[in-house]
Amino acid sequence: MIDDFLHVSITCRDLEQSVRFYETLGLKVIKRLGEVNEVGIARGFRLPAGRLAVAYLAPPQTSSRMFIDLVQWLEPSSTGEPYPVLNHVGLNRMAFRVSDLDATTAALREQGITFLSQQPQVFGEGIRCIVTTDPDGVFIQLIEGL
Amino acid sequence: MIDDFLHVSITCRDLEQSVRFYETLGLKVIKRLGEVNEVGIARGFRLPAGRLAVAYLAPPQTSSRMFIDLVQWLEPSSTGEPYPVLNHVGLNRMAFRVSDLDATTAALREQGITFLSQQPQVFGEGIRCIVTTDPDGVFIQLIEGL
Repeated sequence: MIDDFLHVSITCRDLEQSVRFYETLGLKVIKRLGEVNEVGIARGFRLPAGRLAVAYLAPPQTSSRMFIDLVQWLEPSSTGEPYPVLNHVGLNRMAFRVSDLDATTAALREQGITFLSQQPQVFGEGIRCIVTTDPDGVFIQLIEGL
Repeated sequence: MIDDFLHVSITCRDLEQSVRFYETLGLKVIKRLGEVNEVGIARGFRLPAGRLAVAYLAPPQTSSRMFIDLVQWLEPSSTGEPYPVLNHVGLNRMAFRVSDLDATTAALREQGITFLSQQPQVFGEGIRCIVTTDPDGVFIQLIEGL
């Protein structure tokens, strides 16, 4: 059956803008596919075409072989708006482990990253988190202590 | 900054139905939170309330500490439909590594899992994949050779 996680795919409107955002969070580009035409992907997902530009990203210290498959669709082009609320059915947010949430939040604010709340919030047994959104509005949660 | 991936959160309509689907794919429940009331999550995501039921799942052989955070929202309740097409902006699909795609596809079909195409599709340099959807319609891609 399934061996492991492989990737989570995020469709974005502007690949370079989204790469810059995820690099600011601390992820690194591990591969770029430039512009590819993937008829198999189109067939597999029942799309009329499959022209896209792709970058794979991962945290440099990751324990896993997983990556983010960041995709700007060219034909058909990226379309629509991300889920506006967390209770919307679907793949709704991505969470990253952070060892020092206060220092990370402060450092990211200096680089222009904004958060949905002024302070980190607490849930569970003392777990702390704060939420940002990527350039398209995808929820990204930074979590300390889980 | 970011240390590692932590989880990907999927909002579902019916937690037990979705747990059964992901268990059929071969994932295991590693934790259940039952019904929790998380004011911090509500505040962090600007929601009026945060009552939810949660299960964490991961492939038993995973190389990572990552998991799927499967959430049925109770208040506010899970709402809406997942992205209908892969080129929709947002977290759009999750992909799993599979070592023997033909055997996996056949075994899953015997358990009632259906796929968007009859045969696996090929992309890149001989990478093979097939796509299913979870009980709510979230795209799940099984990939061999990437």
